[in-house]
Amino acid sequence: MGSIVHYAPISRVVVFGGTHGNEMSGVTLAKHWLKDPSEIQRQTFTTESCIANPLAVEKCVRYLDQDLNRCFSNEILRSPESEGDPYEVKRAREINQQYVSGVPSFDFAFDLHNTTSNMGATLLRCSKDDLLSLHLANYLQSNSEDQSMPCYNYLIDIPEKDNAYLQHITKHALCLELGPQPQGVIRSDMLSRMRELVNQALDFINLFNKGKEFPSFETDIYKFVSRVDFPRDSTGEIAAVIHAELQDKDYIPLKCGDPIFKTLSGKDVYYEDEKVLYPTFINEAAYYEKKVAFILTEKVNWKVPALKVEQ
Amino acid sequence: MGSIVHYAPISRVVVFGGTHGNEMSGVTLAKHWLKDPSEIQRQTFTTESCIANPLAVEKCVRYLDQDLNRCFSNEILRSPESEGDPYEVKRAREINQQYVSGVPSFDFAFDLHNTTSNMGATLLRCSKDDLLSLHLANYLQSNSEDQSMPCYNYLIDIPEKDNAYLQHITKHALCLELGPQPQGVIRSDMLSRMRELVNQALDFINLFNKGKEFPSFETDIYKFVSRVDFPRDSTGEIAAVIHAELQDKDYIPLKCGDPIFKTLSGKDVYYEDEKVLYPTFINEAAYYEKKVAFILTEKVNWKVPALKVEQ
Repeated sequence: MGSIVHYAPISRVVVFGGTHGNEMSGVTLAKHWLKDPSEIQRQTFTTESCIANPLAVEKCVRYLDQDLNRCFSNEILRSPESEGDPYEVKRAREINQQYVSGVPSFDFAFDLHNTTSNMGATLLRCSKDDLLSLHLANYLQSNSEDQSMPCYNYLIDIPEKDNAYLQHITKHALCLELGPQPQGVIRSDMLSRMRELVNQALDFINLFNKGKEFPSFETDIYKFVSRVDFPRDSTGEIAAVIHAELQDKDYIPLKCGDPIFKTLSGKDVYYEDEKVLYPTFINEAAYYEKKVAFILTEKVNWKVPALKVEQ
Repeated sequence: MGSIVHYAPISRVVVFGGTHGNEMSGVTLAKHWLKDPSEIQRQTFTTESCIANPLAVEKCVRYLDQDLNRCFSNEILRSPESEGDPYEVKRAREINQQYVSGVPSFDFAFDLHNTTSNMGATLLRCSKDDLLSLHLANYLQSNSEDQSMPCYNYLIDIPEKDNAYLQHITKHALCLELGPQPQGVIRSDMLSRMRELVNQALDFINLFNKGKEFPSFETDIYKFVSRVDFPRDSTGEIAAVIHAELQDKDYIPLKCGDPIFKTLSGKDVYYEDEKVLYPTFINEAAYYEKKVAFILTEKVNWKVPALKVEQ
């Protein structure tokens, strides 16, 4: 008994680094693999590496005009080009042209990110329907049980038509989000862990292509619920900072009455919801401008059917 | 026996935050104290707060055109103004005008910084001759012996004529350099430690003004020796990263044979000098563009004479 999900074999994989130009693990690896791609080749498919936002990488900033990782909506990709388009809009169209509209097109994208939050190795997916990447995430988790940097399965469940993330463009995709690492810094521990995860992920795809059947499993998924902003004063300025007791506590259950902020005059602000949720992206540098202090998730348990390549 | 150093009483103190616009402890405190300066007032002197680089703070970047903290040279401050001057050059002249050339001028400046390096609470001075700030550093160290974030005494010994740091403009000055903290992030622990240090420093100045004699003491000082760049390939690109065994080991003695870098092909690079030195600013984000992977210091022991206010 039990159904098996079938997908076509993967023939072309692309590994994006530098989607945000100051997230240095992916930038460093993508640059290295562009010079020497031998490490990321496997028997049953080809892999390319790409710096997604080269000008942002050159300047070591997140982006020039707007967040590239919110430019891959159908609306942007299908709208006519215009001289005054923001750099990242142009770049999104170029990437789509090169890896998707082209023949042959790519069927798996890795997108390599870092966060200043204590998120360990977060395996972030934007589609609940892509069961290949969910099996892949499970494979990475199973391979990392003795690791000091744990793997977390993260889902931002976005309807296909609204998905503007880079991982929207290919049929299958996974974003690796490793932290904590400051923007503009290459930490050896983050770099080697990300390198290992990409290599294990490529091994998984190779096994999949070769016909290995991956059994059904149960897994915990941290699923996006809501964004929480900093308390602000009447001018819109931040009036309280992440509480010392919340800082670095990503994925630790947040319970009613737990302190979440401290005002500059020393007052504690508490979490007041009766529902236990799991905070993530706590104090992520890039989210200050998005007015996000942390992101709440719920932990859901899924049963995932077995997987095998289409014959 | 034993000489006593005398200085005039301090009448006006300025606390600069946001000299680098993305070093958030100082930015946050300076903004807060601009709104409510009561916390930083003392009986015997007045204190003002100032955002040194307001446009960089607004954009949450280190600087717009060039590093403001290298713009306070005599040459820049005395040269004629020109329309095309970089923003930070203009701003350095404005700050100098407001706090030094003005009457009455300020006699003590604090400059609040953060680093991505594991530097704890580093008390950084650019003049070996300012014994008031050295006594102040000793006072802060004595008050922090039970702290999880230790205080270090740091000296970049720059001849007065070559000093381009903000702390050059006043007779007495101290830079607080707290880390690790990512750029663009406000960590509660760093914020409260910096706040405490500034308050203790103001207490010290108050005691000094009131005539308290501070006895002579011996102290260890980490003194700038040299900058070390990353290994680079023929195109100038970084070819090795800070070794995992060096990362976060600021102020830990570096001995011949210790690994300092790891190349992307996995080879260790070792420290080869016979002289034991003390690495600092290891993996500071802002120093990548300065081609600095870390800064070597030597630990020197100084005997500092007693201090008392001039009557």
